Amino acid sequence: MDEKQIIKWLISHCVCKSKKVKIGIGDDAAVIHYNSNFYLLLTTDVVVENVHFKTRYATYRQVGRKALAVNISDIAAMGGRPLWALVSLGMQEKKANVYREIYNGILEMAEMFNIDIVGGNLSRSETFFVDIFLLGIVEKENLILRSTAKPKDIIFVTGTLGGAQKNKQFRFIPRVKEAREIIKRVKPSAMIDLSDGLASDARKLAEASGCGFEINAEKIPFSHDANKNKISSAFYDGEDYELLFTVSPEFASLVPGKIGDVPVTNIGRITKQKKFVLKYPDGRKTTIGKEKFKHFS
Amino acid sequence: MDEKQIIKWLISHCVCKSKKVKIGIGDDAAVIHYNSNFYLLLTTDVVVENVHFKTRYATYRQVGRKALAVNISDIAAMGGRPLWALVSLGMQEKKANVYREIYNGILEMAEMFNIDIVGGNLSRSETFFVDIFLLGIVEKENLILRSTAKPKDIIFVTGTLGGAQKNKQFRFIPRVKEAREIIKRVKPSAMIDLSDGLASDARKLAEASGCGFEINAEKIPFSHDANKNKISSAFYDGEDYELLFTVSPEFASLVPGKIGDVPVTNIGRITKQKKFVLKYPDGRKTTIGKEKFKHFS
Repeated sequence: MDEKQIIKWLISHCVCKSKKVKIGIGDDAAVIHYNSNFYLLLTTDVVVENVHFKTRYATYRQVGRKALAVNISDIAAMGGRPLWALVSLGMQEKKANVYREIYNGILEMAEMFNIDIVGGNLSRSETFFVDIFLLGIVEKENLILRSTAKPKDIIFVTGTLGGAQKNKQFRFIPRVKEAREIIKRVKPSAMIDLSDGLASDARKLAEASGCGFEINAEKIPFSHDANKNKISSAFYDGEDYELLFTVSPEFASLVPGKIGDVPVTNIGRITKQKKFVLKYPDGRKTTIGKEKFKHFS
Repeated sequence: MDEKQIIKWLISHCVCKSKKVKIGIGDDAAVIHYNSNFYLLLTTDVVVENVHFKTRYATYRQVGRKALAVNISDIAAMGGRPLWALVSLGMQEKKANVYREIYNGILEMAEMFNIDIVGGNLSRSETFFVDIFLLGIVEKENLILRSTAKPKDIIFVTGTLGGAQKNKQFRFIPRVKEAREIIKRVKPSAMIDLSDGLASDARKLAEASGCGFEINAEKIPFSHDANKNKISSAFYDGEDYELLFTVSPEFASLVPGKIGDVPVTNIGRITKQKKFVLKYPDGRKTTIGKEKFKHFS
């Protein structure tokens, strides 16, 4: 059973009964009615030792910072603002200095985004993990899902892609401000954050929308940290925590080329045909697998 | 640094800025303004392999059930009703049958309490854990904190105590209904759920309220699963997931002796003096440590 099958099984077994639940499992965050103007956004993401980081290469402060940042990125991808977090820590021993360093990283991020840490939990665990639950809100008219892209919509990404393992994974600033600035100019038809890599996440957005995509290789904004095989690096490295969003072609010109220092780049388009295509300048096309390329033309 | 010091450090470093946050770190759940009638309750609790269960002695279904039940118990202790949950799983491999069994246990509990599973996360982890984040609501007038007991208040517990490791830890039904029935009859001055054992949790309530307590040994309702040393079993075994609550002496007679099949027992009183005392029928008294008895008279 792969992740997709698990999510499918989950969706069929976790049918929400409450009328307050607008979106349950399947998007970057759950969406719940809050009041006449706002939805609540609920998300959870964990960083686990030896899976998402190695304590040899990362400081505890970096781990704490990242644990909150990946959750903020999910809220950003729905068009929202993060507000309240609960922190669940698992560690072998209750070492005061480790505990404080993790929290100093979490609080660095929390202060940057005005997030209140309202609760948490500390448990013994052989494997060290930092699991964060984050609540946010979004104005009802600003909510953006991943499942509502339409054929011909133009695909944009913020920032640059590839090689995030080198530095960016512990330094990135989630794109809350950028998402809200984009929405102010033109509301995207769909949005997702790039946590697993362009291949996987663009595909998730396209599949959720019942569509495919065609991405132009020469348009992808590579990070200077991207590996030698830049395309592979942008597609499969992951951990970029940029936003991928789609805009109806008639409004695409309203998307700014930059927001502050962050470039916003048109990299392709959504297609009716459910194929995931990378197009080279010479006209060559390849389909994009989740973990490898498959040539078909 | 013990848990108390950690929480103290946390409380001083996690000062909430949002006016919507009524209670942050320190109670069974965080309390946030929802609308004119309700507060939102936010809680998180994790069950970790080899700490909270061993896969040799517990089925995955039991683990899933317990993971949600312990969180529901926190919501019950605030007087609220559980509504929405997010499930964060860590496991070595994505085994379909294990995954389904965990979820079947979670869903068994969710259905019993009309909880919607609105999101979640699945991560690789050497150590198996089920971390749940639960939201609930409580009518503003029904909210009960652990920090508001007063000297002379009478202490009650629901159910029976001790030996929960044998069976009850995987079978208990969180006391949501009982809490709400009690509140209907007479609003407790303070309440907490018994997860760590009577000694630790009664002390948490008393300390949060700036008080002490005196518990009468002969009044404690022992479980038939309690160990030979029944008092020690009730005080230190933990995992009872019963409610401990306090009621002003003038209203104590309004507390029912039973709710359905669940006994409700007067076991002592809150004291002005910040001592944690166990009183025997012969007049002998001992102070109650968190993990052992200390004789003082």
